[in-house]
Amino acid sequence: MSSILGNKLKMSIFGESHGTAIGVSIDGMPPGEKIDMDKLLSFMKRRSSSAKKLTTNRKEEDIPIFLSGILECKTTGFPICAIIENKDVRSSDYENLRDIPRPSHADYTAFEKYKGEADMRGGGHFSGRLTAPMCIAGGIAKQILERQNIFVGAHISQVGDIKDALFGINPTKEELLSPGTKFPSVIDNDKGEEMMTLIEEIAKELDSIGGVIECAVINLPVGLGSPIFQGIENRIAQGIFGIPGVKGIEFGSGFQGVVLKGSENNDDFTIKDSKVSTTTNNSGGINGGITNGMPLILRAAIKPTPSISRKQQSFSLSEGENKPLVIKGRHDPCIALRAVPVVEALCAFIILDILMEEGVIS
Amino acid sequence: MSSILGNKLKMSIFGESHGTAIGVSIDGMPPGEKIDMDKLLSFMKRRSSSAKKLTTNRKEEDIPIFLSGILECKTTGFPICAIIENKDVRSSDYENLRDIPRPSHADYTAFEKYKGEADMRGGGHFSGRLTAPMCIAGGIAKQILERQNIFVGAHISQVGDIKDALFGINPTKEELLSPGTKFPSVIDNDKGEEMMTLIEEIAKELDSIGGVIECAVINLPVGLGSPIFQGIENRIAQGIFGIPGVKGIEFGSGFQGVVLKGSENNDDFTIKDSKVSTTTNNSGGINGGITNGMPLILRAAIKPTPSISRKQQSFSLSEGENKPLVIKGRHDPCIALRAVPVVEALCAFIILDILMEEGVIS
Amino acid sequence: MSSILGNKLKMSIFGESHGTAIGVSIDGMPPGEKIDMDKLLSFMKRRSSSAKKLTTNRKEEDIPIFLSGILECKTTGFPICAIIENKDVRSSDYENLRDIPRPSHADYTAFEKYKGEADMRGGGHFSGRLTAPMCIAGGIAKQILERQNIFVGAHISQVGDIKDALFGINPTKEELLSPGTKFPSVIDNDKGEEMMTLIEEIAKELDSIGGVIECAVINLPVGLGSPIFQGIENRIAQGIFGIPGVKGIEFGSGFQGVVLKGSENNDDFTIKDSKVSTTTNNSGGINGGITNGMPLILRAAIKPTPSISRKQQSFSLSEGENKPLVIKGRHDPCIALRAVPVVEALCAFIILDILMEEGVIS
Amino acid sequence: MSSILGNKLKMSIFGESHGTAIGVSIDGMPPGEKIDMDKLLSFMKRRSSSAKKLTTNRKEEDIPIFLSGILECKTTGFPICAIIENKDVRSSDYENLRDIPRPSHADYTAFEKYKGEADMRGGGHFSGRLTAPMCIAGGIAKQILERQNIFVGAHISQVGDIKDALFGINPTKEELLSPGTKFPSVIDNDKGEEMMTLIEEIAKELDSIGGVIECAVINLPVGLGSPIFQGIENRIAQGIFGIPGVKGIEFGSGFQGVVLKGSENNDDFTIKDSKVSTTTNNSGGINGGITNGMPLILRAAIKPTPSISRKQQSFSLSEGENKPLVIKGRHDPCIALRAVPVVEALCAFIILDILMEEGVIS
Repeated sequence: MSSILGNKLKMSIFGESHGTAIGVSIDGMPPGEKIDMDKLLSFMKRRSSSAKKLTTNRKEEDIPIFLSGILECKTTGFPICAIIENKDVRSSDYENLRDIPRPSHADYTAFEKYKGEADMRGGGHFSGRLTAPMCIAGGIAKQILERQNIFVGAHISQVGDIKDALFGINPTKEELLSPGTKFPSVIDNDKGEEMMTLIEEIAKELDSIGGVIECAVINLPVGLGSPIFQGIENRIAQGIFGIPGVKGIEFGSGFQGVVLKGSENNDDFTIKDSKVSTTTNNSGGINGGITNGMPLILRAAIKPTPSISRKQQSFSLSEGENKPLVIKGRHDPCIALRAVPVVEALCAFIILDILMEEGVIS
Repeated sequence: MSSILGNKLKMSIFGESHGTAIGVSIDGMPPGEKIDMDKLLSFMKRRSSSAKKLTTNRKEEDIPIFLSGILECKTTGFPICAIIENKDVRSSDYENLRDIPRPSHADYTAFEKYKGEADMRGGGHFSGRLTAPMCIAGGIAKQILERQNIFVGAHISQVGDIKDALFGINPTKEELLSPGTKFPSVIDNDKGEEMMTLIEEIAKELDSIGGVIECAVINLPVGLGSPIFQGIENRIAQGIFGIPGVKGIEFGSGFQGVVLKGSENNDDFTIKDSKVSTTTNNSGGINGGITNGMPLILRAAIKPTPSISRKQQSFSLSEGENKPLVIKGRHDPCIALRAVPVVEALCAFIILDILMEEGVIS
Repeated sequence: MSSILGNKLKMSIFGESHGTAIGVSIDGMPPGEKIDMDKLLSFMKRRSSSAKKLTTNRKEEDIPIFLSGILECKTTGFPICAIIENKDVRSSDYENLRDIPRPSHADYTAFEKYKGEADMRGGGHFSGRLTAPMCIAGGIAKQILERQNIFVGAHISQVGDIKDALFGINPTKEELLSPGTKFPSVIDNDKGEEMMTLIEEIAKELDSIGGVIECAVINLPVGLGSPIFQGIENRIAQGIFGIPGVKGIEFGSGFQGVVLKGSENNDDFTIKDSKVSTTTNNSGGINGGITNGMPLILRAAIKPTPSISRKQQSFSLSEGENKPLVIKGRHDPCIALRAVPVVEALCAFIILDILMEEGVIS
Repeated sequence: MSSILGNKLKMSIFGESHGTAIGVSIDGMPPGEKIDMDKLLSFMKRRSSSAKKLTTNRKEEDIPIFLSGILECKTTGFPICAIIENKDVRSSDYENLRDIPRPSHADYTAFEKYKGEADMRGGGHFSGRLTAPMCIAGGIAKQILERQNIFVGAHISQVGDIKDALFGINPTKEELLSPGTKFPSVIDNDKGEEMMTLIEEIAKELDSIGGVIECAVINLPVGLGSPIFQGIENRIAQGIFGIPGVKGIEFGSGFQGVVLKGSENNDDFTIKDSKVSTTTNNSGGINGGITNGMPLILRAAIKPTPSISRKQQSFSLSEGENKPLVIKGRHDPCIALRAVPVVEALCAFIILDILMEEGVIS
């Protein structure tokens, strides 16, 4: 129940950080869709790429092996199963059942939920590594959407208090996709450098930092989505909170919109050559849960990596006593950087699901 | 598909602002649960209450009529259907098919989605009035949770740039429930007065303003929820975006957490008398989608009421030409005020659903 | 969870036999579909009609009151709620909590499941009366399907050991719809008379008898449905077992097909003027869960009415001792007769759901 | 959407007959459940076992490889993914896109649904081979149920017109499990021999024959299941129609019950030492969709294998002309024989899902 997303199109995520393999089964893909495997691998590489040794040392090649649902690089319409083998597993860094739960990790909650039976090595099924299969499903969805002229792009819009430029009211396809070609994925390269400098400093302090990812989808048809509980916002939010570390999401003006007056926040309509648009986009492309034809804009807040090498206060599950904890090994000082393609992947997947449900794609 | 929420416990919302009745059918309620009808009516009154004529003039008495599932004020275990008749409908204020869509409303998107067939008088099924049946379902859920010693409370934590105090790390039951006894629902009464003054001014300017609602749930068992796509955050977010006007949600430190370092944002554990807690609560009570026993804390951003009486730019659906629009009638200058119990209602409902799914309540 | 059917189009049934009202909320109906109310009432009357006082005395007028989702006799696309008030409730015939459970009724199982809290007067939510709201939802679905040239018809194909003719390989629209104009709904009127004579005799013996209903759907497009768990058979079976008393379902040659050889049971293909058909229809129009363009054919077995006025052996829930039971009041000696339109209703609803899911109707 | 079964516990089936691997991902298994791998393999062997070369020649070893969710032969609570590699694939027997669809197979319907893109070699995702992953999921479920003293057993109750004995009103654990230790799985060995003789004869005629499988579940708690659309019958029927070739299902007296009078078909209650039972079991253990504590009894009708080597009439998809078809290769003359454990597997899985949903197992 927990690791399945979608209505007509469903992804079912499986695997643990230190198990045999991680993967995804995808039920409901439309048939006959070509998959450009190089493009998919490039997309997935964005998730696993490190820059200047800042990110985790584990070499994850993230090569998906397709077991079903694909024939000669085309979807058949049958369920797709793709796995990624776990090769570079150094169990010495981790113990199976961690006796001292890491603060702000799922160690303690998983211990209680799974009665101590979960395989929590490396974070188990809660590991950020599980975002790789999301990228397989979402990467395929992105390719299908692109053939419909629908594009999904994201960038790291904030690291700590350093803010990148924003996509604005109506980004072009180029503006949307450009950040994805860089690491870090930013609009303003200077800001990207500032971010990396900050992260480097923080890494030296054995600490970590959070970030915000902005994502946009352009060229969506008008009228997609449903009122109340199955609106675009409801569904995307449900998906995006599936990315480890996400603690907030907003659409359009979001939390900034609350300080605006209605006259400032409302998006006036304008029609030109029968094309309806709005002069601002504080709605983030959605009214009443339904697309209005303007770009879908959302931002996700990602907390600082909870794995830090500084001493923290915890307790022993077995002894029931307070204990200090020092987490060994190198950790990604800013997980937000690598979550950029994951946000794109989930948005693409959910949008494709909605398009299929509404009969736009079949 | 659109107006149904829940897994084991489901609410199905129906009705339009100017139809015969609005209501909810609730499938899966546990049997034998007493419903204190006075308490339920008091709870619902919080949603419909106005202060100093600031809010909408329509007198909504919001008396639920139970058609099924309740016998002698106890749940039977069968589906509950409750309706609220629409009495005070002044259709003269509205036309059935609005030719000039209101900016940042669902008029245009609904027109496209429903091919011009939807009954959009008063906002139709998108109307804020549909939050009343949510309060029936959630109000019942709240009462059931309270018998399990689980309490849900919320307050208006921000209106424009005026901020109320926050619940903090570990609110008591009294601190949690106190704001709900006031209008506006605030912790700090002075801030509440400032908010009302601001709203009055803005109303005079024929304008509106947004707000933030903070909600907390205390005494949740540890280990509730699931990883990845069915975590507490995923499910609550999916529900809360069902409230008209919500454009953002965050848990724990949320968007503020991104500027913190891991060493600042992580919640250290402490154990005392076998009771595990954390010394801070930036996680908002959730790690890996699962409750950790600390209070569940969330905040929802609600945009300024899109209905304002100032002139706005729009267009004619029939003529395809730009047209100015002036919305007549009085409107609520800050819908966030009345959304406070609705946030509580949805949180309570979702938490009860999860408790039932996990066999804690049956 | 229990009383909801459908994927994209959902009906949620509520109400008890002796409560205030019974009804249905329907989420996901396509907008702009005209509803012929006279036709709907005629359809519902088939469910409530009695012949020669054979059936239950309770006068159920079954007039649906639409609370939402319909404007000027057209669907708006918003959730439809329709209720039927319970008027002719004679509680004296029943006690609220029946101490001696009726054999082969849900009294005992409901007592255990709902901890004695369920309102079981008249069968509560398990009552055959709950098939009336199914007929509202299905009756609307039938009208929408008919505009797509898809027709659903059923007849009582067996009562006791008296068998009506069958629809055969390829019934015309007239052959399909003709039984629905009669009571009992048969193809062969002589068999219908034999059935009524048998039922009359059995009623005199204070006993009851079972029956089989055959249902067909014609003009379905090829390629509808999905493999494995979401095939046409899976979904229709799930729905049809929602009718009280159904204990079996078969498609095409069904249980008779097991004595056939493959060479007899296989449906040879033939193509003429680019139109593919099969020379027999032992598959009942479905291969691999997917429609093949031939009529969908199914049969449902309905047990003899469990309410009989003969003395039966039961026990006292409160005293825990064996007790004889004599059920008072008159009861329908053959519930299968009135279930004919209900089978049609559920088939129509499920087919419409599938057509909407697959984008054929939107 | 198509290949997923379950509510709280979900199995997602993937793979094609001639793809890289087939398998299942299972979401929601309770943690800490031991899996006896030898027992699981034995169970799976029942599905793949052939007797006297009657069944298909393909050697399917059906060794599941667990990729996730299992640690040291215990469930962790995380999603389980298990695959079976496709080794013995002789593509020469099949072409990828079959131009002449086999009668009563899914070739034609899949061609239409998947626009000719599906990988239909060997039946693709419709192949009986896909029942192997069902047996992995169901085999694990069976082991968990057994630790709760709940046992699931089945036998081939009919082949052609040869009928085995039936389980009767109240089979013991030994009576229930004994047929599963034999091939064919019968109660009465003489009948089993008759069946095999018949099948041998039919195989010589290049023909095939159907069968019926009876399945029972004993020691279920009273009160399991839900009224209307989520009853035990609804859910088991939805699952069982997922087995290729199933064309009918009945519970208790089923289709035979329609010729009985109420006084014959009703199950009188009797109570002894506070234990409630019924003196007959025509209800098959279910009243109103809910278990009554008696054995759950169902029967599934399985059509004769559609693959026969006799000449049949079909047509060419590419040329649109009638064509005869002779299917090469050896085929299982009675697929019902090997479907016995699959029926057990799906019943066990669905029952476990229901037990988990209702909080009996967690």
